[in-house]
Amino acid sequence: MSQNITLALDGMGGDHAPSVVVEGASLALERYPGTRFIIYGQTQVLAPLLSKYPKLSQASTLEPTESVVTSDMKPSYALRNGRQSSMGLAIDAVHKGIADGVVSAGNTGALMVISRFVLKMLEGIDRPAIVSLMPTLNGESVMLDLGANVDCNQEHLVQFAIMGEVFARLILGKRHPIVGLLNIGSEEIKGSDTLRQAYGFLKNGPFEDRFYGFVEGNQIHQGVVDVVVTDGFTGNVALKTMEGTAKLIAEFVRRTFKSSWMAKLAYLLSRRSIKNLGLRLDPRRYNGAVMLGVNGIVVKSHGGTDALGFATAIGFAVDLVKGQFRQKVLAEMDKIRNTHHIAPIQL
Amino acid sequence: MSQNITLALDGMGGDHAPSVVVEGASLALERYPGTRFIIYGQTQVLAPLLSKYPKLSQASTLEPTESVVTSDMKPSYALRNGRQSSMGLAIDAVHKGIADGVVSAGNTGALMVISRFVLKMLEGIDRPAIVSLMPTLNGESVMLDLGANVDCNQEHLVQFAIMGEVFARLILGKRHPIVGLLNIGSEEIKGSDTLRQAYGFLKNGPFEDRFYGFVEGNQIHQGVVDVVVTDGFTGNVALKTMEGTAKLIAEFVRRTFKSSWMAKLAYLLSRRSIKNLGLRLDPRRYNGAVMLGVNGIVVKSHGGTDALGFATAIGFAVDLVKGQFRQKVLAEMDKIRNTHHIAPIQL
Repeated sequence: MSQNITLALDGMGGDHAPSVVVEGASLALERYPGTRFIIYGQTQVLAPLLSKYPKLSQASTLEPTESVVTSDMKPSYALRNGRQSSMGLAIDAVHKGIADGVVSAGNTGALMVISRFVLKMLEGIDRPAIVSLMPTLNGESVMLDLGANVDCNQEHLVQFAIMGEVFARLILGKRHPIVGLLNIGSEEIKGSDTLRQAYGFLKNGPFEDRFYGFVEGNQIHQGVVDVVVTDGFTGNVALKTMEGTAKLIAEFVRRTFKSSWMAKLAYLLSRRSIKNLGLRLDPRRYNGAVMLGVNGIVVKSHGGTDALGFATAIGFAVDLVKGQFRQKVLAEMDKIRNTHHIAPIQL
Repeated sequence: MSQNITLALDGMGGDHAPSVVVEGASLALERYPGTRFIIYGQTQVLAPLLSKYPKLSQASTLEPTESVVTSDMKPSYALRNGRQSSMGLAIDAVHKGIADGVVSAGNTGALMVISRFVLKMLEGIDRPAIVSLMPTLNGESVMLDLGANVDCNQEHLVQFAIMGEVFARLILGKRHPIVGLLNIGSEEIKGSDTLRQAYGFLKNGPFEDRFYGFVEGNQIHQGVVDVVVTDGFTGNVALKTMEGTAKLIAEFVRRTFKSSWMAKLAYLLSRRSIKNLGLRLDPRRYNGAVMLGVNGIVVKSHGGTDALGFATAIGFAVDLVKGQFRQKVLAEMDKIRNTHHIAPIQL
């Protein structure tokens, strides 16, 4: 692999592909000069788009593909029929070592299933996990799994914790991230056996005093931990609940500012501040869910994102490749195996 | 039982007891004239408080108790040692038929464990469930279980659905509530076996076309369903995540309004509207989690609530007693047993 990073982009995935993909890559290139892109998709639409960005054109190769994995395709169908699609071939590029990572705004389930099938899992990791950033009162944290696995046992949770900790180091830039397990309280009767066993392992495990213990739902945004670990069912419900609550409040605020002429005037005066507030909560800043655990860097951009959001997703891929995410996770897993302080869990 | 409703109040439970209990009862009495209260607690502090409210004094009896279940007591300890406490004796009053229901702002776990032990379960219901109101874009919905059970099987979820539907009829005043099961998507690979089996039963079950199917976390606040059914782990995480997200946004809004003199001026102009927004999201309006499934009406007020919140909790108890909650749930369970359209689940 050269010094420069090469990323495979699914040129056709997402609601606003391919324009958002090309524009996003152009923005990312400004932030990460030297990055190279292989863009998979229909060249007749991609080529004219690309020609508008001379720098990006120089840094990119177009690879023609015909078929597309659509957003309503079932993952199992996409796995059988989508291997020659823009998504399938972009993943293949990582498998073949042509690219260091792949970014797609396409069908999440398909991306996960094809990635897992083509790239296989990282040694020692049994299940992939979806991780993303969360806004907190004092910055950002990471949370996983956000929906890859419905049922998780204690070993899966421990593996998620290890991957999440490395992810937080590379993406949040924290040297010593604090890790917490999501639960519904700290009382004796609370939590499942699975959670208690994962707790038991992590308590005596690799993070030492950086394992915070259990955290509750209201602490996710408090920033008491840098890494929130949970199963994919709970994580997905929590993530979507956040979205729902934020929308509810936004709607109530909107109605409030329409409720009187004084409120309307107030809105005019505070527009700029409100816009700043919007930026702080801007989903584009939090765009990019990474599929951890597969043997390759796979980043999922939100399907409805704009170019800025897609550029953020590309940034995750660059940071994980540069930071040698996979090698670091493997090293952590080795450390655990070798130190053998793993009484409650066989890893 | 007389025409008038009698409620047992735990006079000592909660952060601001006993004053909030007495003041809350006084507010509730204005809304529900004719209600009678038996207030359990230390008479030397309760009597002088009560003397400030002549109407309430007439409608109330004081029952002296010495011990108190504290907020940090483990439920198992409270069960062994708290039976003569203000909480324990208030629950006992329901068991003995002296009171129609009990309201406490004390230790949630203790209230649940003692209630279950003393009152036993409603026939046909295996597990208690905690239910509460949720604000939605178009009004309110109810959600359960919010934390009574970590693990739930399909039968428990179906029982929660039945209790939640009756609860929504009585508390939201909806004649035909729509019921949904919380899941992480509707795709084939999504959701646990438990959820799919509960889905299968409810699809052909008592609600007919009022069973909406699966709902996701972002739909809880949308008001697409009146009853959101989930296990206690997921429900509790979702509830606390909402609290956390609301607090995060509130803090960002606060910082926004402090960020410039124009924003500060805007705040002054919009103060009243913002106050209205506050009322709409006022946790006191949503105060009162009801322990459904035990053989008696048991309402838990938030420990930190004020008098208005405690009055809301009392209102739940009144509505459930008047609406004959238990009899209606038993009738629904009978209907299910007799119509035998219960292929997938033995109820």
